[in-house]
Amino acid sequence: MKHVEKYARGYFMPPKTSLKWAQKEYITEAPIWCSVDLRDGNQALIVPMNLEEKLEYFKVLVDIGFKEIEVGFPAASETEFTFLRTLIEQNLIPDDVTIQVLTQSREHIIRKTFESLKGANKAVVHLYNSTSLAQREQVFRKSKEEIIDIAVTGAKLVKQIAAETEGNFQFEYSPESFTGTEIEFALDICNRVLDVWQPAAANPVIINLPATVSMSMPHVYASQIEYMSENLKYRENVILSVHPHNDRGTGVADAELGMLAGAQRVEGTLFGNGERTGNVDIVTLALNMYSHGVDPKLNFENLPEIVAAYEQATKMRVSERHPYGGELVFTAFSGSHQDAIAKGMKWREEEERQYWSVPYLLIDPKDIGRQYEGDIIRINSQSGKGGIGYILQQKYGLDLPPKMREHFGYCVKNVSDQQQKELQPDEIYDIFKQEYVNLKSPVEFVKYRFNDDEEFSTVVTIRTGGETKEITGNGNGRLDAISNALQTELGFDYTDLVYTEHALETGSKSQAVSYIGIKGADGAAYWGCGIDADIMVSSVRALFSAINKIISK
Amino acid sequence: MKHVEKYARGYFMPPKTSLKWAQKEYITEAPIWCSVDLRDGNQALIVPMNLEEKLEYFKVLVDIGFKEIEVGFPAASETEFTFLRTLIEQNLIPDDVTIQVLTQSREHIIRKTFESLKGANKAVVHLYNSTSLAQREQVFRKSKEEIIDIAVTGAKLVKQIAAETEGNFQFEYSPESFTGTEIEFALDICNRVLDVWQPAAANPVIINLPATVSMSMPHVYASQIEYMSENLKYRENVILSVHPHNDRGTGVADAELGMLAGAQRVEGTLFGNGERTGNVDIVTLALNMYSHGVDPKLNFENLPEIVAAYEQATKMRVSERHPYGGELVFTAFSGSHQDAIAKGMKWREEEERQYWSVPYLLIDPKDIGRQYEGDIIRINSQSGKGGIGYILQQKYGLDLPPKMREHFGYCVKNVSDQQQKELQPDEIYDIFKQEYVNLKSPVEFVKYRFNDDEEFSTVVTIRTGGETKEITGNGNGRLDAISNALQTELGFDYTDLVYTEHALETGSKSQAVSYIGIKGADGAAYWGCGIDADIMVSSVRALFSAINKIISK
Repeated sequence: MKHVEKYARGYFMPPKTSLKWAQKEYITEAPIWCSVDLRDGNQALIVPMNLEEKLEYFKVLVDIGFKEIEVGFPAASETEFTFLRTLIEQNLIPDDVTIQVLTQSREHIIRKTFESLKGANKAVVHLYNSTSLAQREQVFRKSKEEIIDIAVTGAKLVKQIAAETEGNFQFEYSPESFTGTEIEFALDICNRVLDVWQPAAANPVIINLPATVSMSMPHVYASQIEYMSENLKYRENVILSVHPHNDRGTGVADAELGMLAGAQRVEGTLFGNGERTGNVDIVTLALNMYSHGVDPKLNFENLPEIVAAYEQATKMRVSERHPYGGELVFTAFSGSHQDAIAKGMKWREEEERQYWSVPYLLIDPKDIGRQYEGDIIRINSQSGKGGIGYILQQKYGLDLPPKMREHFGYCVKNVSDQQQKELQPDEIYDIFKQEYVNLKSPVEFVKYRFNDDEEFSTVVTIRTGGETKEITGNGNGRLDAISNALQTELGFDYTDLVYTEHALETGSKSQAVSYIGIKGADGAAYWGCGIDADIMVSSVRALFSAINKIISK
Repeated sequence: MKHVEKYARGYFMPPKTSLKWAQKEYITEAPIWCSVDLRDGNQALIVPMNLEEKLEYFKVLVDIGFKEIEVGFPAASETEFTFLRTLIEQNLIPDDVTIQVLTQSREHIIRKTFESLKGANKAVVHLYNSTSLAQREQVFRKSKEEIIDIAVTGAKLVKQIAAETEGNFQFEYSPESFTGTEIEFALDICNRVLDVWQPAAANPVIINLPATVSMSMPHVYASQIEYMSENLKYRENVILSVHPHNDRGTGVADAELGMLAGAQRVEGTLFGNGERTGNVDIVTLALNMYSHGVDPKLNFENLPEIVAAYEQATKMRVSERHPYGGELVFTAFSGSHQDAIAKGMKWREEEERQYWSVPYLLIDPKDIGRQYEGDIIRINSQSGKGGIGYILQQKYGLDLPPKMREHFGYCVKNVSDQQQKELQPDEIYDIFKQEYVNLKSPVEFVKYRFNDDEEFSTVVTIRTGGETKEITGNGNGRLDAISNALQTELGFDYTDLVYTEHALETGSKSQAVSYIGIKGADGAAYWGCGIDADIMVSSVRALFSAINKIISK
């Protein structure tokens, strides 16, 4: 690609890497989650939320179980100031939830920030300034020492005003654009802020390391976090936090590897809303943990409702392929996947194993409030007998014999292929009925009677070409007798009759379903299905259906 | 969350991990890219592509520069068979492009696959069978040895039929559901297939390790890949390939760390289309490399066109926040980001540094065919003076003085906040004109003349309340004389007049733009702008505008 010479790696490697994080296998405990939906997420919307939408969204976040929620940048926007005042004055913040506010390191902004917090029981005051080489050089045109001075001056002021203000305040510092900052300078500035704040066990300080722009591969970010974790002063009283963005499509990996590397807290948003490519998606992080058997301490048991609330408030859409929340993420269209899922679900029912292991489904969709029906198996021209059979069975109680399922599979695939569309369950059922069930043309079954004297000798009334007539036959069973009547009196030539049957619950009453396969004179298999309240009648209807298929061909 | 006890980690750790991959910093060379858009991607669409769409999409892939393209599963679908025959018979495959076809390990399918390839110059025949514990136990109900037998039998048959068929065939084997397979069993089955195929320097074999379902954290996948890479037989003649899916939102990280761990080839799709959460997104992988100064050997110089072609063929949408391709991924709404970007762009122009380092922009949007205008800076209630000033400057050539820009910034923010919508550049320009430019009410400037005898003594004609009148004044400059006339004859009370001016190119002719700020009696600043072909007139119009702002208030 052109202009590749214009680019170089703009991040900084730590002076040494211990890679202890890489020796850990998975995340064993939920971090402290901090939602930044109402700040970082909101400021990246085409139309930011209004007051009502923010209040509604705050409630959604509380219901999910967030205990820390960044509510905005109250000194920078009247709307955000008003929102914060509303939360406080209307007592909308539960006791176990801490709100967080962002402030730049400028005196009038810090003062206004504390003003906005009046009456709050407790809050995290989040101080930041930009520290990257690019920002120092291009935006602030200041030396490292001058940038440290901004942070330290702000930290002192925050501490001083907090002491003068009623309420419980925890402090957070972010060297913004951390990923573009020389790592030892980032360490230095954080330590200088910590020196001011003097974190203590009773009031630990949050040091948050944002991948404001993700610039490196995720394992490099992990090593940066690990270096900071190993070298920060007052480490036992510091809560190390990460705040990844998704510029390189690795926000989730950055957060996950960052946690292995020592981060105890994650700032992110629902479905990864946020500046540009978005913040890290906390839904995915939490459910990834869940899939490993670790309780994320957030409740996504009704994810579709959360998707709906999110889409309404943000006017953004959760894409079809978004992990866990997307429309298609539990859906199999392809035949072999559908087959494996259907078999896996059946196996799980029969075997009663503890652990979920159904192929192609990372977790049980039901556990996050999604339905099997319409979610897991959907039918188009890529689908096969497994999926199509599964739909007929799950939704209509029809348990086709394997060979008939295969036959019907091709039939449905062709319809979807020709019409170039997905087929809904009711369309599939219609094709099934039209193709196999109680077929009456050209030969219609009217009734039968059996001679009471002789066993298995029958007179069958049929109607064909407008005429009604009776045919007779004998056999070693009732169906056999009728089949013989059809073969001998009407000259139908077929062999290898196979027959299965099961009960079918429809509404309050039970019906019988019979499936019959026969081999025609041409060697091909023909299938019919009969449905009737009477089991014998259902089997006769199935036979007539199969014979009608032969004739029609 | 409920039911967490239902889950456990379903993947398998390698018996040892060397973590050499974690010591590498970044990917230094493009892998072999294989697009599986037309197979894995297509089979996951609600409406799979028809023949024409596939032919069109194939062309898009070729134009991007893919040298390996999996075109389908020709034995499983008539449409895919026809598509492949069309490509071959109409000579649509460039000489340097190799097509790839997927086949299950079943004799009639393998035979039909080779039949579909007749006349192809070369092709990769991609054999797979499912190897995971779950699939063996639940779907196939077969022992490990029986599963190996499926693979080995298929490999032999592929080799045999290839030898009997004209053309150049390369072989690929995938232990499908690799991530759910005991790692030593995966190694064993791959080695057994390699024993059959006997890879050679002249015809290397591809071993592809799919994260059919992503089950572990990405560093675990990397260690699995590294273990395979270090222990596969015939390693020097094996091309190790990865095929990640995105179930855990870590498809990109899986591929990237997998490459560090020894993978030389990546199977994926544009924008991550594919089963469920999708395949790994090759666009992101390639541009991540590009952002590090490494040529990805794929051409995304006109990404918006590729997005459009993708959306048309797949009926899927590239989400707003999708890395590189999404609508909003280079957009800053927030004031501080806009300010930093505007300063960074200016700095870059002035300093002429080699490497791109503009804050908040991972790469230069222009390098992938995106425009600055409308892409980078968009204006809503979160925006500030930096961004708003940037729009006026870039699109309308108006370079406001800093204090006026701040004043106008608040003005625009308020409009956006009240109307709850994003403002387009022309709307911003309209607000600017209405607010500042050539204001004529209540006092309209008509003309002035200067007395030729005396320097800087003027008679100004004005119109106000329907009346025209003349006022006079003297000063140490022309503008000063006019200002004095307004102050002394009409009693306007203001001080601290500041004045700046620049030329403005509009169409073919140049105009002058003047900005004037004055301090009113109330101590507030009032701003006016004048635009006129004549520089002196423009400054007078600016002054009248500022005075009209005072009066209107």
